[in-house]
Amino acid sequence: MTPHENRIELPPEIENEFQELTRGVEEVLPIAEFRKKLLDAHTKKTPLRVKAGFDPTAPDLHLGHTVLIQKLRQFQNFGHHVLFLIGDYTAMVGDPTGKSETRKVLSRAEVEENAKTYKEQVFKILDPQKTEIVFNSAWLGLLKLEDLLNLTGKYTVARMLERDDFSKRYAAGQPISLVEFMYPLMQGYDSVALKSDIELGGTDQKFNLLVGRDLQSAYNESPQVVMMTPLLVGLDGVKKMSKSLGNYIGIQEAPGEIYGKLMSISDDLMRTYYTLLSDKTRAELAQLWNSIAEGSLHPKQAKADLAHEITARFTSREIAAQTAEEWSKIHNPKERGLPQDMPEYRYAKGTQLAVLIKDAGLAASNSEARRMVEQKSVYRVGADGSEVVLGDFKMAVTEDFILRAGKRKFVKLVS
Amino acid sequence: MTPHENRIELPPEIENEFQELTRGVEEVLPIAEFRKKLLDAHTKKTPLRVKAGFDPTAPDLHLGHTVLIQKLRQFQNFGHHVLFLIGDYTAMVGDPTGKSETRKVLSRAEVEENAKTYKEQVFKILDPQKTEIVFNSAWLGLLKLEDLLNLTGKYTVARMLERDDFSKRYAAGQPISLVEFMYPLMQGYDSVALKSDIELGGTDQKFNLLVGRDLQSAYNESPQVVMMTPLLVGLDGVKKMSKSLGNYIGIQEAPGEIYGKLMSISDDLMRTYYTLLSDKTRAELAQLWNSIAEGSLHPKQAKADLAHEITARFTSREIAAQTAEEWSKIHNPKERGLPQDMPEYRYAKGTQLAVLIKDAGLAASNSEARRMVEQKSVYRVGADGSEVVLGDFKMAVTEDFILRAGKRKFVKLVS
Repeated sequence: MTPHENRIELPPEIENEFQELTRGVEEVLPIAEFRKKLLDAHTKKTPLRVKAGFDPTAPDLHLGHTVLIQKLRQFQNFGHHVLFLIGDYTAMVGDPTGKSETRKVLSRAEVEENAKTYKEQVFKILDPQKTEIVFNSAWLGLLKLEDLLNLTGKYTVARMLERDDFSKRYAAGQPISLVEFMYPLMQGYDSVALKSDIELGGTDQKFNLLVGRDLQSAYNESPQVVMMTPLLVGLDGVKKMSKSLGNYIGIQEAPGEIYGKLMSISDDLMRTYYTLLSDKTRAELAQLWNSIAEGSLHPKQAKADLAHEITARFTSREIAAQTAEEWSKIHNPKERGLPQDMPEYRYAKGTQLAVLIKDAGLAASNSEARRMVEQKSVYRVGADGSEVVLGDFKMAVTEDFILRAGKRKFVKLVS
Repeated sequence: MTPHENRIELPPEIENEFQELTRGVEEVLPIAEFRKKLLDAHTKKTPLRVKAGFDPTAPDLHLGHTVLIQKLRQFQNFGHHVLFLIGDYTAMVGDPTGKSETRKVLSRAEVEENAKTYKEQVFKILDPQKTEIVFNSAWLGLLKLEDLLNLTGKYTVARMLERDDFSKRYAAGQPISLVEFMYPLMQGYDSVALKSDIELGGTDQKFNLLVGRDLQSAYNESPQVVMMTPLLVGLDGVKKMSKSLGNYIGIQEAPGEIYGKLMSISDDLMRTYYTLLSDKTRAELAQLWNSIAEGSLHPKQAKADLAHEITARFTSREIAAQTAEEWSKIHNPKERGLPQDMPEYRYAKGTQLAVLIKDAGLAASNSEARRMVEQKSVYRVGADGSEVVLGDFKMAVTEDFILRAGKRKFVKLVS
């Protein structure tokens, strides 16, 4: 954050735009320049050119990726121009060190095919009318050695080695190929070629984003403002969302999966997801938190609204509505005559039914529990509200279900 | 030097070639490979490709530069092929950092013009029939970013920072532009493009020469052997020969200058010059040293022979002979009745003549010195042997000459 005196005053509507665009953002550098650029864009009626770069390998986006795309959409909502950059150049060249096994060399056709998949996915969020899809091979492919000498002449070795991973590897004596120094330069040169005003990226991209800023200055362009979106926390509420951790929601998953997974998140995480993923305005969100605080809105309802919004985004309003209804039918205790606040009981799989009834507090002793089973007053409640009498008190419980003992004693078994 | 076991035995005539080619050389890396390459060249009757790179800025060579060219000539004498590389590419591109004021950007025409001047000068040493003049713009100018990524992928940052000047500057926090890392790579790529077997350079080029070797291996070529010629000591016998120190002999200087300057060097320096600059064989040189040691050859005669050889090289045999004769007439004390071993006297310019005569030991006292002057027995001896009586004992002496006092007392005044 720059000192207060550097922050220019903005008219209320632009101040609001600034607040919306920086909402949930991890870092804006330099923030005073961003305010200035917003003001200039409106004064000169020239939309900002907002760049974001994407890997050209076949995309299979999850909600974590959409935080940034959602931010791009916000820019579009305020009338700005999105430069959706597909970094095809290096993918077509490959890694000359041969060390990166993950980066396979792609043909032009594969790049085009992947770009198509990208479009299908990102246009669920972005406005195609305000999105320019660009490929950096268009300018990088034309560079000659002469241009590259020019480019490398604009950066020092020491600055490059300031990058966190480089400095660590250099200090540890691990090899850094010179070509690795070329990649930030190329990414930075993309900003020069695109004359971007803003570049969005993850926090892990900070160094590379700032290289773009430096290079634009070196090429006598107005340097871009860099904006870093945070990593989205996964469903577990702890680790960043990722495929390998399994705590993700893929945007191409079945609507029931998207909806159900969102319903499973904690109330705290729901707030984060609202901030980073919802189209609701700041004012609307403030009202939402207020209603929850006042007790006029149950958090579960807020979560259902979020799940509905996100599901609709990646499917359709109709499908989302249908999904919500089905989910509700299965899970809503009211509709099945179940109490709204059912206690959960965490059990060890394999526990004997009678022991479980007693331990869960549904009976005072093991013998009472046994008696209840023998009197046919213990039920297993199905997802659809149907009930099955449990007759064997010695039964080993190995899966989660809702247990009813007597008329109104319920407990949700959770392993 | 590699261990003895790596040194292959060579037939006598190739062993002799090896000895001649390594004569006076500072370092050969790896020397065992050089022996192997020499043997292979003869076995397969394929001349070695011997590369040396030169700056394309207007050349005005001095003897220091010719040490390396002389070595190239030796290779030619043994039937090998010289690749005389003019590094025009970077000169036409310039220094993108804008820091090097000395490197001006040259046009194609200027490069061609300079190349012509080069030829005029180096063909006084090299055999044009066995010299291929090449320009690295021919291949570097064609490289695309893709090729450069490939090239940079073959080298690590750490290895680049091992170069002495880089490591010092990095440690001192002085900026190193990334483009400076590109130059050794380009020089190395020249070796790849030329498929050179040997590269010659100064000792200050060791790092860059070895980069060429590494890159050839990386491009699956047989790596070149690098051969470093020493810096020639200047006329003062202490510092390296250079224009700025004034201790040099330019190869385009007047024959009298070349000859005279060579005659002024010390006997020790003469031996070094013979080793590095003379066309005499090792056997001939051994005999020369022997004759001097035995007393059958005066070192001054040996020096005259060297001066004659070098002068002839840059002018012609006729001019050299004429120059030697003139020089002898002026300087040979015998021919002018001057003693062969004249003491030198180092004086401070402006000293009064009488004081000087006394201090130089030609008179016992100042009054005796005055008397000698008044008696017209003090002379200034000219370069051509002519004598002028000095009549004013108060005269301030401001230039060097030979002073005669009385019949046979001589002293050479040196300021």
